[in-house]
Amino acid sequence: MTIETVDALVAKGRAARAASRQVARLSTRIKDRALLNIAEALETGQSPVLAANRRDHEAARSNGLDEAMLDRLLLTPERLQDIARDVRAVAALPDPIGETMDMTTLPNGLRVGKRRVPLGVVGSIYESRPNVTIDIAVLCLKSGNACLLRGGKESLHSNTALVKLVREAIAEAGVPPEAVQFIDNPDRALVDAMLRMKEHIDLLVPRGGAELVRFVANNAAMPAVTGGIGVCHTYVDRGADVGMAADIIFNAKVQRPTVCNALDTVLVHSDVAPRCLPRIARELAAAGVELHCDHRALSILGPSPLGEGELPMGKVLPAVEDDWGQEFLSLTAAVKVVDSLEEALQHIETYGSGHSEAIITEDYSAAMRFLEEVDAAAVFVNASTRFTDGAQFGLGAEVGISTQKLHARGPMGLRELTSYKWVILGNGQVRY
Amino acid sequence: MTIETVDALVAKGRAARAASRQVARLSTRIKDRALLNIAEALETGQSPVLAANRRDHEAARSNGLDEAMLDRLLLTPERLQDIARDVRAVAALPDPIGETMDMTTLPNGLRVGKRRVPLGVVGSIYESRPNVTIDIAVLCLKSGNACLLRGGKESLHSNTALVKLVREAIAEAGVPPEAVQFIDNPDRALVDAMLRMKEHIDLLVPRGGAELVRFVANNAAMPAVTGGIGVCHTYVDRGADVGMAADIIFNAKVQRPTVCNALDTVLVHSDVAPRCLPRIARELAAAGVELHCDHRALSILGPSPLGEGELPMGKVLPAVEDDWGQEFLSLTAAVKVVDSLEEALQHIETYGSGHSEAIITEDYSAAMRFLEEVDAAAVFVNASTRFTDGAQFGLGAEVGISTQKLHARGPMGLRELTSYKWVILGNGQVRY
Repeated sequence: MTIETVDALVAKGRAARAASRQVARLSTRIKDRALLNIAEALETGQSPVLAANRRDHEAARSNGLDEAMLDRLLLTPERLQDIARDVRAVAALPDPIGETMDMTTLPNGLRVGKRRVPLGVVGSIYESRPNVTIDIAVLCLKSGNACLLRGGKESLHSNTALVKLVREAIAEAGVPPEAVQFIDNPDRALVDAMLRMKEHIDLLVPRGGAELVRFVANNAAMPAVTGGIGVCHTYVDRGADVGMAADIIFNAKVQRPTVCNALDTVLVHSDVAPRCLPRIARELAAAGVELHCDHRALSILGPSPLGEGELPMGKVLPAVEDDWGQEFLSLTAAVKVVDSLEEALQHIETYGSGHSEAIITEDYSAAMRFLEEVDAAAVFVNASTRFTDGAQFGLGAEVGISTQKLHARGPMGLRELTSYKWVILGNGQVRY
Repeated sequence: MTIETVDALVAKGRAARAASRQVARLSTRIKDRALLNIAEALETGQSPVLAANRRDHEAARSNGLDEAMLDRLLLTPERLQDIARDVRAVAALPDPIGETMDMTTLPNGLRVGKRRVPLGVVGSIYESRPNVTIDIAVLCLKSGNACLLRGGKESLHSNTALVKLVREAIAEAGVPPEAVQFIDNPDRALVDAMLRMKEHIDLLVPRGGAELVRFVANNAAMPAVTGGIGVCHTYVDRGADVGMAADIIFNAKVQRPTVCNALDTVLVHSDVAPRCLPRIARELAAAGVELHCDHRALSILGPSPLGEGELPMGKVLPAVEDDWGQEFLSLTAAVKVVDSLEEALQHIETYGSGHSEAIITEDYSAAMRFLEEVDAAAVFVNASTRFTDGAQFGLGAEVGISTQKLHARGPMGLRELTSYKWVILGNGQVRY
């Protein structure tokens, strides 16, 4: 890497910082106008974006990317339309900036309160999906932040075209185009340089696989959102409604297995396991789910995991130690029989990633205890962990899901891209 | 450093983590009982603490510590009584844990909300004042956290005695004494080891000078509170009430010059400088303040800084570049004449540390613009920056003052030692 490229990166950081001061003070009207312009451009100015995406797609195909990756990379007129719709939804959300909180008057007459302000510059490092470019840019603009984006190498042309579209659209509304900075140099070393740009980036948002998220968490000099890794348990308590348990587990595992809030491990109380597990396993197996079972679950589900039984051959396997705490992101689940709520809590504490955990029970005390003792971003009673999501929880858009405890936990919306400052209105007060 | 000492440190981290799970679930009644026991012990069990403190004090004196340091290290029966009073004040504050926020019912009947929870384990690295041991331990216990404390080498015996007192007092109330862990090995290398203990410490609170705070911020693997460094400006606007300006500046500089919210730089609009500066300077000089003035301020305050004038010789000096952005922590202030609010804002942006900034003005638009544009933890109109303080702002106790934007900004109270988890109460909901 030459000095010039790091200099160019730092210059972008400085430009983002300068623009952030202007963006912080824009009225809601102008920010929303800018977002609506982006949405319109995504519908009426598709040609250059689609052409750039074709270049990326062809290069990726000849480089041998797998079909799932190629699909994530692909933009189509319909997909751009969907993105435009999402942008309009963000424009329709309330503006978090300027909100005044906890304003009180002290005995000496000082009026003291907090005012919500943007963070400043949000950095994002993400992988192949080019829609993240729009997603992050729009969430940052609405929350009064500038952004510095670093997408995947394979979507470079698509991202370049999208950023051009965004910058033109927002400039037309009176928003400085420098508020959206894009790193168009695919050199991997620039990621390392970016992780050191503490002066220029207030918060770093990694969007992608577990490896990327861990790398950013371990190497960023600035605060970074840690999250997106979900090892999610659903515990079927002794007091569970068996039908409800089967339905919820099926939904949590099968409805969208590739995402972080999908179920990974089923824990079943030994009292209900004989009644409950065959039904759960049958339904999951019918949907193609492979079950990795501890020996007690195996003994309930069949005399031998590869022997004859109600379940398709090979769908039920003995669990190995690595299955506990595994985020499968596929049609696979681990299954374990436990003898008590305590044992379930202990297992979740040992193997969970602090994302989403559920109990299925009709027992009030068990439900309350689970809510109290499980240390995770989202704790459910009698519902599918798939609900952990900004839109589902009523935040509108979502920047990501945090599994850290500082600043924001769980789904992060616009408000989680803000800070506050204390404002103090006096008329000459001094301290004694 | 031997392996054994790091092992012992990690064992303390693990013990704190284990205790944190119990402390998180304690009732307010038990936590408050524990705090009142500590307060009582500080009054009735002073002898061993005072004896240990005498050992530290004598060693420090023979090691040549200066009088200010010796004073900070000293414990007296009265000081222990004052600490006991502060502990009772924390016991009287509302318990932040368990508060439920933003609870709503979604269209599908899911009840979704946030519940306030402790962070887990709070680490603190601090310098000579042994009262910090009680301070952090008590704030952590009240907010349901365990703590891992590392005090200064020179207060080792005092801290050891105080921790013993705390652990006995809380155990009597049914709180696990392991919730307060103290590192009694003065080896400096243990600080480095502690900064890497990401798995065992959720938040690190440095308490001490700028050097310590910067070292922790730059080297901690876990989130750390950045703060306590205050380069505070007060800008006397063209529209200022001159008498009010002089009173506020006097208070901000003189009332307690050694703390982070004390004034460092006075900026004065050129229109009012001739009327305003002589009065401000006269009052400050009378209190022994040394002024480091730019050439325009110098030309107003006297023909030559060392020549004859109304001011005592030597109290007015020409400013050097290093004076801007300097945190003096003493009876010294920098003074600069500016030609506009813009120039003042620009100066504050360049040299401020994002702590506390004030404008003195009767001009409504200038006040609003200052509040809007200054990017600091606390922004004041017509009041002394000395008010930036947890107790003054109504938070009760204070862990520290944050100048970062993530998690908490400005004075941090009990609530800022907490996180939240989402709790979701369903009756069988699945996602479509």
